[in-house]
Amino acid sequence: MADDILRKRRSGGRAANTARRSQSLFAQMPWRIPLNTDRPTEPLREEGVQAIHDGAMRILEEIGIEFLNEEALELFREAGCTVNGTNVRMGRDWVMEMLSTAPAQFDITPRNPDRKITIGGGHILFGNVSSPPNYWDLEIGRKVSGTRAQCANLLKLTQYFNCIHFAGGYPVEPVDVHASVRHLDVVFDKMTLTDKVAHAYSLGAERVEDVMEMVRIAGGLTEEQFAAKPHMYTNINSTSPLKHDIPMIDGCLRCIRKGQAVIVTPFTLAGAMAPVTMSGAVTLSIAEALSAIALFQYVRPGAPCVIGTFTSNVDMKSGAPAFGTPEYMRATQMTGQMARYYGLPMRASGVCAANVPDGQAMWETSNSLWSAVQSGTNIVYHAAGWLEGGLIASPEKFVMDCEVIQMIQRYLEPEVVATSPDDIAIDAIKEVGPNGHFFGIQHTQDRYEDAFYQPFVSDWRNYEAWELAGGLWTAERAHRLYKEIVAGFEPPPMDDGIREELEAFVTRRKAEGGAPTDF
Amino acid sequence: MADDILRKRRSGGRAANTARRSQSLFAQMPWRIPLNTDRPTEPLREEGVQAIHDGAMRILEEIGIEFLNEEALELFREAGCTVNGTNVRMGRDWVMEMLSTAPAQFDITPRNPDRKITIGGGHILFGNVSSPPNYWDLEIGRKVSGTRAQCANLLKLTQYFNCIHFAGGYPVEPVDVHASVRHLDVVFDKMTLTDKVAHAYSLGAERVEDVMEMVRIAGGLTEEQFAAKPHMYTNINSTSPLKHDIPMIDGCLRCIRKGQAVIVTPFTLAGAMAPVTMSGAVTLSIAEALSAIALFQYVRPGAPCVIGTFTSNVDMKSGAPAFGTPEYMRATQMTGQMARYYGLPMRASGVCAANVPDGQAMWETSNSLWSAVQSGTNIVYHAAGWLEGGLIASPEKFVMDCEVIQMIQRYLEPEVVATSPDDIAIDAIKEVGPNGHFFGIQHTQDRYEDAFYQPFVSDWRNYEAWELAGGLWTAERAHRLYKEIVAGFEPPPMDDGIREELEAFVTRRKAEGGAPTDF
Repeated sequence: MADDILRKRRSGGRAANTARRSQSLFAQMPWRIPLNTDRPTEPLREEGVQAIHDGAMRILEEIGIEFLNEEALELFREAGCTVNGTNVRMGRDWVMEMLSTAPAQFDITPRNPDRKITIGGGHILFGNVSSPPNYWDLEIGRKVSGTRAQCANLLKLTQYFNCIHFAGGYPVEPVDVHASVRHLDVVFDKMTLTDKVAHAYSLGAERVEDVMEMVRIAGGLTEEQFAAKPHMYTNINSTSPLKHDIPMIDGCLRCIRKGQAVIVTPFTLAGAMAPVTMSGAVTLSIAEALSAIALFQYVRPGAPCVIGTFTSNVDMKSGAPAFGTPEYMRATQMTGQMARYYGLPMRASGVCAANVPDGQAMWETSNSLWSAVQSGTNIVYHAAGWLEGGLIASPEKFVMDCEVIQMIQRYLEPEVVATSPDDIAIDAIKEVGPNGHFFGIQHTQDRYEDAFYQPFVSDWRNYEAWELAGGLWTAERAHRLYKEIVAGFEPPPMDDGIREELEAFVTRRKAEGGAPTDF
Repeated sequence: MADDILRKRRSGGRAANTARRSQSLFAQMPWRIPLNTDRPTEPLREEGVQAIHDGAMRILEEIGIEFLNEEALELFREAGCTVNGTNVRMGRDWVMEMLSTAPAQFDITPRNPDRKITIGGGHILFGNVSSPPNYWDLEIGRKVSGTRAQCANLLKLTQYFNCIHFAGGYPVEPVDVHASVRHLDVVFDKMTLTDKVAHAYSLGAERVEDVMEMVRIAGGLTEEQFAAKPHMYTNINSTSPLKHDIPMIDGCLRCIRKGQAVIVTPFTLAGAMAPVTMSGAVTLSIAEALSAIALFQYVRPGAPCVIGTFTSNVDMKSGAPAFGTPEYMRATQMTGQMARYYGLPMRASGVCAANVPDGQAMWETSNSLWSAVQSGTNIVYHAAGWLEGGLIASPEKFVMDCEVIQMIQRYLEPEVVATSPDDIAIDAIKEVGPNGHFFGIQHTQDRYEDAFYQPFVSDWRNYEAWELAGGLWTAERAHRLYKEIVAGFEPPPMDDGIREELEAFVTRRKAEGGAPTDF
């Protein structure tokens, strides 16, 4: 089908002309930090919250978590926890005491202070897809290994869309760049193509330190200024069940000691690396996340930490991960209740199992994004561009997801549900009466321009007008917008001196051999 | 693009072979009446609810509603309302007194009592798309006028899917059947192809009476048995702004006098036939709906009535209706708050503006279906098969929507969020430990089969397996399932005598000329 679409696209005609329209025709919503005032959807009653809490505490007290990182083991010993080999058991009183210093809300300030994000406190933020090894677009029409050029194009989309608040991990893994220096090239691209909050992979000391240094340089900061408040973050996954590996914990310790933020996201797939029951999988996830966050609070009380959820279920037929399922939604909502119980900001994701940007992709992604809203999630990873359970990044999917995210942003604007006398509009209803319409009246004219969400990739024309314009399905329209955005992309301004300093740093670190690749 | 898909489909090969798999491979969820225990999303605070209530009452008291139906005007006069020509004003005390007799919950029992539905009381029901004049499928690949054959096929889908609880209006308007006898043919098809709750259009006395008679015959009921409780319903729209036409009110009066149910659904499109503000459009909708429901309660206290919402917004560019927008979602949620305020069951819809069953279709439809869940809606019209703002019915869209509806049904099952000790699964977590997995353990084996939602049109395989199986996009997979379902369809059993009586009724009424076509 992708081949068919491409051939049609290349054949030009009326539809191709439409695609050549100026980019200025594409109005998007302004940059803002949405505030989610909806009462969260809470499937657990109080006793359910207590059951999961008690279960997580029993895991920490009776079963323990494996920490492979020696430094972490030493810290746990120092804190009075029970350490047997790599197994760490910790009492619930100690865990809750440690959590008491974790902030419920904090800011991260990137090189452009106007792009500062607030994590927690009812805000909800969206970021690009991170880490797929593969890439798919309508023009290529098949799954291919990611490249630096594709990665850069997806970073351009990340920067272009105001509804994308932060630049997560690599939007696609550029496997054409050697792993030892990949972080240097991609983070250079990220620093120069975007001015939004960036992320460091905790995949070895050198990588984390290099990224922190590059974020410092890009921000024109002294070491002291950098360490004074969060300018970036790392996100780690536990090795479920019940394990934290060496580099992930190392990266977090490096970040928090320099005042940067960490997100701890277990990947507890119910029926595979977690119990087949959703509350069991959530309980395991909570225990794994809290064990690390408690450690980080012990090391640096008040360190900005986020509890992440990546609890889903397997496909009963194949054992493969499924995403955007009813079970996924409920797990996310349950985790939201637990995050509020512990007073921690929360991360969730925009995910799907679909292989191409079609109907299934959008109902699965809608399910996951709306469950983020319903759960009171504060930071949504992979919110744009994700396919095939995270194995594929797609620019068409990125553009389509941004429409859904913009609609969520609009949905959260209080004006939509305002009920002042002017909103209730009795005078306008009286004026129009039973035989008129509201198109022309002053009440409408005064509000028309901003009254409703205006889409950029949805086509709201009737069938005949849509057909006349080429009869393009959504993925095809998204492809054209992606091409337009990349063609017209202008990087955010950067001081020449800073750019040279970044280049010099990359050159020097490459000369030194980059980072070890034995991870 | 539809042409491309069709050509590929016809070319056969591996993918075509896959499509020939037995229908028994297609497992769907059982028939059940889902109970929605989620706390509704309520964007209005108490003062917002009061502002809309007061606005609606002021419309009824100060502006009045036009009732073109003479009988209705006489009834309003008799009830003490202020009638000037066709304008009816009614005091809020009278309205609230009338509403006090409306049931918050009632049942409708079709010819198969196992298909009884409960409307209200936290239940949520889904029905097929109703009334599009046009049809689209992948094989035809363009918009065409509806036919009786297409209508019958969509009725087969309505019957086939357990998640579809009732047969709404004609799933596509069969314009190849003369309007005078169309209701006889389509309702005959509906009575014989389905055993679910049916609907009568209030488009003239003969049509309503004929349908009630056919439902009575199909159920093997005496006139007394038919009138003793609801066996079917009608759904009417007001002529917004501020007007109820003659046949719609007539049809409702005929239904309630024979003990049947009515749904009153204003179509208040913000910026067109309603104020440009969403709360204003909701207020107008509430006033229009309550004026009719108050009348019906006056005529028959306790008559089963449902308040419907069809409040959306126009496209700012074209003035065309938009659906599944953020504004639509909020209007639905606000109407849910008002329906609970008045103690009435509520109807909403599954809608989109998209012209084909693609990504946009599914994010718009997901938005509308989830807002039905969030608003506490009891009965969801147009939940499967709707395209182009209701102007097109599509079997592919029908199948795709049923996947979303099944996921909602699964989402609402309490087992998903159970937190018994067995669910929290501490023993299983202990058993597996840090180095195992949960695939093989007894805790998983005991629960595996029913642990997770199992899809029928979603493809959860990885890209390579999906590609090997033909690389079919969602709409194409849905097309094949639609063909399989129709090919293997077996109508629900019907007594030969009843079938003959139905046939005789249709023959007689056709001989009498059917119904007038001057509506």
